[in-house]
Amino acid sequence: MIPGTFGIGSEVMTRWTLPPEQIPSAWFNVVPHLPSPLQPPLHPGTREPVGPADLAPLFPSALIEQEVSAEPWIDVPGEVLDILRLWRPTPLQRAVRLEQALGTPARIYFKDESVSPAGSHKPNTAVPQAFYNAREGIRRLTTETGAGQWGTSIAFAAAQFDLELKVYMVRASFGQKPYRRIAIETWGGEVVPSPVDEPDHPGSLGAAISDAVRDCVARDDTHYALGSVLNHVLLHQTVVGLEAREQLELAGETLPDVVIGSCGGGSNLGGITFPFVPDESVRLLAVEPLSCPTLTQGRYDYDFGDTAGLTPLMPMYTLGHDFVPPSIHAGGLRYHGDSPLVSSLVKDGRMEAAAYPQGKVFEAAVQFARSEGKIPAPETGHAIAAAIDEALAAKETGEERVILFNYSGHGFLDLAAYDDYNNGRLDDEMG
Amino acid sequence: MIPGTFGIGSEVMTRWTLPPEQIPSAWFNVVPHLPSPLQPPLHPGTREPVGPADLAPLFPSALIEQEVSAEPWIDVPGEVLDILRLWRPTPLQRAVRLEQALGTPARIYFKDESVSPAGSHKPNTAVPQAFYNAREGIRRLTTETGAGQWGTSIAFAAAQFDLELKVYMVRASFGQKPYRRIAIETWGGEVVPSPVDEPDHPGSLGAAISDAVRDCVARDDTHYALGSVLNHVLLHQTVVGLEAREQLELAGETLPDVVIGSCGGGSNLGGITFPFVPDESVRLLAVEPLSCPTLTQGRYDYDFGDTAGLTPLMPMYTLGHDFVPPSIHAGGLRYHGDSPLVSSLVKDGRMEAAAYPQGKVFEAAVQFARSEGKIPAPETGHAIAAAIDEALAAKETGEERVILFNYSGHGFLDLAAYDDYNNGRLDDEMG
Repeated sequence: MIPGTFGIGSEVMTRWTLPPEQIPSAWFNVVPHLPSPLQPPLHPGTREPVGPADLAPLFPSALIEQEVSAEPWIDVPGEVLDILRLWRPTPLQRAVRLEQALGTPARIYFKDESVSPAGSHKPNTAVPQAFYNAREGIRRLTTETGAGQWGTSIAFAAAQFDLELKVYMVRASFGQKPYRRIAIETWGGEVVPSPVDEPDHPGSLGAAISDAVRDCVARDDTHYALGSVLNHVLLHQTVVGLEAREQLELAGETLPDVVIGSCGGGSNLGGITFPFVPDESVRLLAVEPLSCPTLTQGRYDYDFGDTAGLTPLMPMYTLGHDFVPPSIHAGGLRYHGDSPLVSSLVKDGRMEAAAYPQGKVFEAAVQFARSEGKIPAPETGHAIAAAIDEALAAKETGEERVILFNYSGHGFLDLAAYDDYNNGRLDDEMG
Repeated sequence: MIPGTFGIGSEVMTRWTLPPEQIPSAWFNVVPHLPSPLQPPLHPGTREPVGPADLAPLFPSALIEQEVSAEPWIDVPGEVLDILRLWRPTPLQRAVRLEQALGTPARIYFKDESVSPAGSHKPNTAVPQAFYNAREGIRRLTTETGAGQWGTSIAFAAAQFDLELKVYMVRASFGQKPYRRIAIETWGGEVVPSPVDEPDHPGSLGAAISDAVRDCVARDDTHYALGSVLNHVLLHQTVVGLEAREQLELAGETLPDVVIGSCGGGSNLGGITFPFVPDESVRLLAVEPLSCPTLTQGRYDYDFGDTAGLTPLMPMYTLGHDFVPPSIHAGGLRYHGDSPLVSSLVKDGRMEAAAYPQGKVFEAAVQFARSEGKIPAPETGHAIAAAIDEALAAKETGEERVILFNYSGHGFLDLAAYDDYNNGRLDDEMG
């Protein structure tokens, strides 16, 4: 070391890192902490509870076990930790400049999941999914992707385990958002537009799931990977909230007053909120787009996860499996249903939900970019908009509220949407 | 903290972070360590050495002082540290998966500068430049940008200090690479294609510098900001190498055998290599594109920094200030000249230089993406290609070489170039 070059600098701390050896070595299972027991998924034919054998054509046994596990903690395999450590633990940051711009007494913290290779939280589950499949001898994965955040993440993870990958991409995104398609191909994945049999249809996540499941069940060497909704996916995301708890303690906070995540299928939301479910004083807030208002305007019922009705029936808030959401920019939030775990928490009142119009989301995202520097993904903009509203409410009451949200991804591949917003071309269909 | 959730995990360490309070509080000045004294820049009219008064229309006095300083260390202002800490210190990573793919006994480390708000090393100098200008009462900045890495960085920094910004963007990039233009606009900057008076010309960095300087000198409230080449710019980048030294020590290494950076104007290269200049055992390697081979095929001479001959004459390797580089994908490396500091080190034999063809650069970049996960900027791909060659040379000799390179930026906004490479459309004009 060159003597004298390192000093303490000048001002308030705004960023907390953890060394790689402090990555969580177990995932937090929210199931034992739910206010009421989770209802089981039902077989689409018999409407009887689905058993492990029903899921075996789709998923490796380790993931099926996790899907139904009631163990409070589940160990993260060393091989998974080694890959997660390429970017984890991620930083926790305090948005002091945003606080100052808002003139709020609230302290706003965010967990920066944008530093992963794919630029979002999605690799947190892509890596263990690829690992368990490879360990059980699977050679090839199929999946769906909307805007491409999931597709890029599983492509990165598949490359780590030499798995072949075929991604069914919602056709509207395939045409309009080539960058994430190119990223998938750069990691070695194959991408085709969905629905495969309706070349004029703009597509939907539900239809792409149908395509990927059909491909999977037709081949013995192939499994299917899903980037959200399912219990094991949200389980893998809890590293986000576990690290955030540790880092908030380093920041001198005991517990946050409110934890916020944007919600499409529920994975980044579950990741940051679930480890706080046992702490009754902590409010949990799901933020969804007003144009796809599953939690705020959907019904709680059994429904299919896909359009064609191939998946098990899941107990969740849903807009109906044939709902075709408007083509808003936050493609990752365009899903008719929601995670059964998230739905259960909302139904029982443990989690709140709010819906935001697109215009307000981009306004918040740009305010964040100019104050904190980072340009967020539009999905992430939903969480930011709600965090700003929480901070402004605290300003009203003069309260020192502690706000934590999940900065689930960056917006470098979503800049076309910002161009529309900057130039007044954003179509705020329900705003 | 939830008991029992944090463990030590399984395997070899591959990532070293530093807490925000260990950000370097002083910049390292390489000038006292040069093998021969740096020749002064000359006035373009008189060919006499340029004095501070000649530079005052362009730069604030603090930067002019830094430009000519021979002090070994220069303090980083607290206001600058506070903004750099939004992402600094950046991680040092060991590319174990790449080492395994290459079968090399070498240990390859890289400094990850892609985690900044703009996705590259450029904000390291954009922030202090914006700060010093704001402190001296300047209200507006002009600058040039090629592919947009500098333009986005100064736009982020200008937003932090409420400075107006006008960016002259090389016309070819303005048309073909809208994403970085949109990012600049999202941070509040204005972007126009350059050259402004030749609407059919594809443009060059040299011509855009001329446009930005002309705009600057016409207005009293305006200064000019340059993203590379000048001494003060490279000075600001030395936080990269200073942190890397500290982190290599944490990794159990004494000194690297070779330090590598890609080179356009020289700023990311200078940032990582300069703190190692006093260590004579450490080889330093500049990597440039074969299509713009300034250091390897240029002449060492006084030349203008811009096309129109408005800047001082600088002592440097140059291909001639009227050289129009072919439109390769690594836009950030398309510059006819080079930093005088880098040029001086190469001239005196303290630094080596190598030129790589585009095809080999993308091959290395894709190998890196598939092994280490991250998709690099094409500029960064040059450093990766050279690091791979160093690792393969170590494999030949069975040597445990320690290699350090600067991962200067991510490739999320350069995916169109990967699409060309993936589909065999890459025009390797000199490869």
